[in-house]
Amino acid sequence: MNTDRLTRKDELKQEFLLLKKESGTHSPSIATIFEKLPGVSIDVDACFLSNPYATDLFLKYLKDDLIKTNKLRDVLEFYPPQNQDVSRFISKAIGANQKNIFVGNGAIEIIQAVIHRFVGKKLCIIIPTFSSYYEFVRPDTEVLYYKLNKEDNFVLNPDKFISFVKDNEVDSIAIINPNNPNGGYLSLEDLNHIIESLKGLKNIIIDESFIHFAYENVDLSQITSEELIRNYSNLIIVKSLSKDFGIAGVRAGYAVMSEDKVKTLLSNGYLWNVSGLADYFFKIYSQNDFIVEYNVVRKKYIMNTLMFLTELNAITNLKVYPSKANFALVELKGMTSFDFYLDLLVDSGVYVRDCSDKIGLSGEFVRIASRTFEENLKIISAVKKAIS
Amino acid sequence: MNTDRLTRKDELKQEFLLLKKESGTHSPSIATIFEKLPGVSIDVDACFLSNPYATDLFLKYLKDDLIKTNKLRDVLEFYPPQNQDVSRFISKAIGANQKNIFVGNGAIEIIQAVIHRFVGKKLCIIIPTFSSYYEFVRPDTEVLYYKLNKEDNFVLNPDKFISFVKDNEVDSIAIINPNNPNGGYLSLEDLNHIIESLKGLKNIIIDESFIHFAYENVDLSQITSEELIRNYSNLIIVKSLSKDFGIAGVRAGYAVMSEDKVKTLLSNGYLWNVSGLADYFFKIYSQNDFIVEYNVVRKKYIMNTLMFLTELNAITNLKVYPSKANFALVELKGMTSFDFYLDLLVDSGVYVRDCSDKIGLSGEFVRIASRTFEENLKIISAVKKAIS
Repeated sequence: MNTDRLTRKDELKQEFLLLKKESGTHSPSIATIFEKLPGVSIDVDACFLSNPYATDLFLKYLKDDLIKTNKLRDVLEFYPPQNQDVSRFISKAIGANQKNIFVGNGAIEIIQAVIHRFVGKKLCIIIPTFSSYYEFVRPDTEVLYYKLNKEDNFVLNPDKFISFVKDNEVDSIAIINPNNPNGGYLSLEDLNHIIESLKGLKNIIIDESFIHFAYENVDLSQITSEELIRNYSNLIIVKSLSKDFGIAGVRAGYAVMSEDKVKTLLSNGYLWNVSGLADYFFKIYSQNDFIVEYNVVRKKYIMNTLMFLTELNAITNLKVYPSKANFALVELKGMTSFDFYLDLLVDSGVYVRDCSDKIGLSGEFVRIASRTFEENLKIISAVKKAIS
Repeated sequence: MNTDRLTRKDELKQEFLLLKKESGTHSPSIATIFEKLPGVSIDVDACFLSNPYATDLFLKYLKDDLIKTNKLRDVLEFYPPQNQDVSRFISKAIGANQKNIFVGNGAIEIIQAVIHRFVGKKLCIIIPTFSSYYEFVRPDTEVLYYKLNKEDNFVLNPDKFISFVKDNEVDSIAIINPNNPNGGYLSLEDLNHIIESLKGLKNIIIDESFIHFAYENVDLSQITSEELIRNYSNLIIVKSLSKDFGIAGVRAGYAVMSEDKVKTLLSNGYLWNVSGLADYFFKIYSQNDFIVEYNVVRKKYIMNTLMFLTELNAITNLKVYPSKANFALVELKGMTSFDFYLDLLVDSGVYVRDCSDKIGLSGEFVRIASRTFEENLKIISAVKKAIS
């Protein structure tokens, strides 16, 4: 490594620190990085938690259905159907009652709505977590943190958690399953136990944004706790579709919650919160042919991720925490997460998530996403280079 | 007209009443009508308030920039930039400070945010109006209606309005300029007078969603009150881009408001509320070449609308109220608005807005939008047929 390169890395370090500061607790998007740091080139975006094979599939449908037929104009020109009309397609896709479905402009809009409108005085959050869960609370809501421990591999102990919640008289809890940023997975059995034990709570928010990447059986069939809404009206199941379907730019998400909660939200807003393109996505989401093809690319990506995590785990001087998501939390030994992050980017064009701003993580952590088979090979090789 | 046709019209009447009931105080979208009432065919959507020539222009840019280049994938796959990054483009386009700009998933999201978060105990609304302004209020906000009179041609008298607001101790007011559903336009001079007289109010919401269709000079140059934010920090200027740019399905809007208000909203939500496609729109919105072309189609459409309203006005047995928007409020003599609406649809395939559900309107009113030159000819001919 020559002196110029070292100097450039120092400069970049300063520029990145500034950019990260501007982006708050979320990573700057690739588009923002390209625009603000023109010298940087990203070859593999391993910060981005999305199935690239699913994007291919969506694009194939979009081209056939909208571009080749010239129907794209209708999708862009006209008002999309209202929220409750779009929910019909989701109802068909997931089998839940339409009255229990709230459609969101991405899961993030739903998280904001639920936290602003339904959470009461005390919300229990499991950390480390996705920061919006505590950043979006109202000023009059107290956030209580339940910390997962490194020593336990960031695995949640259901009974300890239940006791903590009961002892602290919280009204609402949020569980991301699998959790972000570590990918820790709570089995449906454990989740059922928690929900049954805490049925007196006002709200149990289950964020299943990464659940399509998890599995309990060898056939990798899809898991969800959505049907529990029939028995527990305090459940709010939040579902991003950005990750599993590879369409973050479309902004599509939904939640399953009690009919009362859906009514409350719709009586007072969220009229045309879904774009024409998101409405188109929800339509194909309810089509059997699309779902059959989707499950092929979903399973392909899971197998891909499994191989990737195994290879990552074999590298010395880093620890890969157990994950059933499409990423892993990686702890570094002998170097800071920021240096590792910058080395990967500058030397190999691989962009990962430096977790130094995540509350509840002490140590040097990065989150690395699984990408395509070819990209994962590049990530592994870049990590090996940075570690050595 | 044979008996079958009459029977079918009766059936449709029942089906429409049901559909309208389901859609609340907003018209069912064309897509919803097509889906739920397969027998109905719409030739001209004169309910839809949008410049079709601007849609053509946007599609031309989109095809060249995204489809031909294969960049559409990036727009759909990746997270769009965060709210405050997108606002840079709007800042460049309109010349306001970026810190005063809040980007919305359509103006409707901004209306909801402003009414939920900034309006206090008493909001004054001018009726007839766009229903979300009163439907979205919190339960603890009282809505006070200032009624425009048919006898005054639904023209707002600034001094009477100022007195009414002062006498009733409201904290916030909302003015749509030009107003929806009548298109009544308040000159910048009158608006300035109102704003200066009511500078003690907490919030003055000015909705300029239709302002690109208004004009004060013969050269039809664009009007806006956005620059007044420099002198009046209580101003909130809401701007839909669906109508003027013909892109309702994209969901794009913004507001100009005090830096404090923007900070309040962004500190607690609205992180990725703009889709990749809306972000693309905002980019071209800041490009000079696009705006030059846009102003050509804007002026073409205004001229078109002027001719259309003149022709409409010449038809006997209906009254066209003064409008500087892309639509007019039309009062019918000797027939109900619902019968007129259904006649237009069934006999001519022309879909207009029956205003019988609009509060503040007593009488038989429909709102008719201006469309392309060719479509406007069809509307005129359909109206003549229905009236005779």
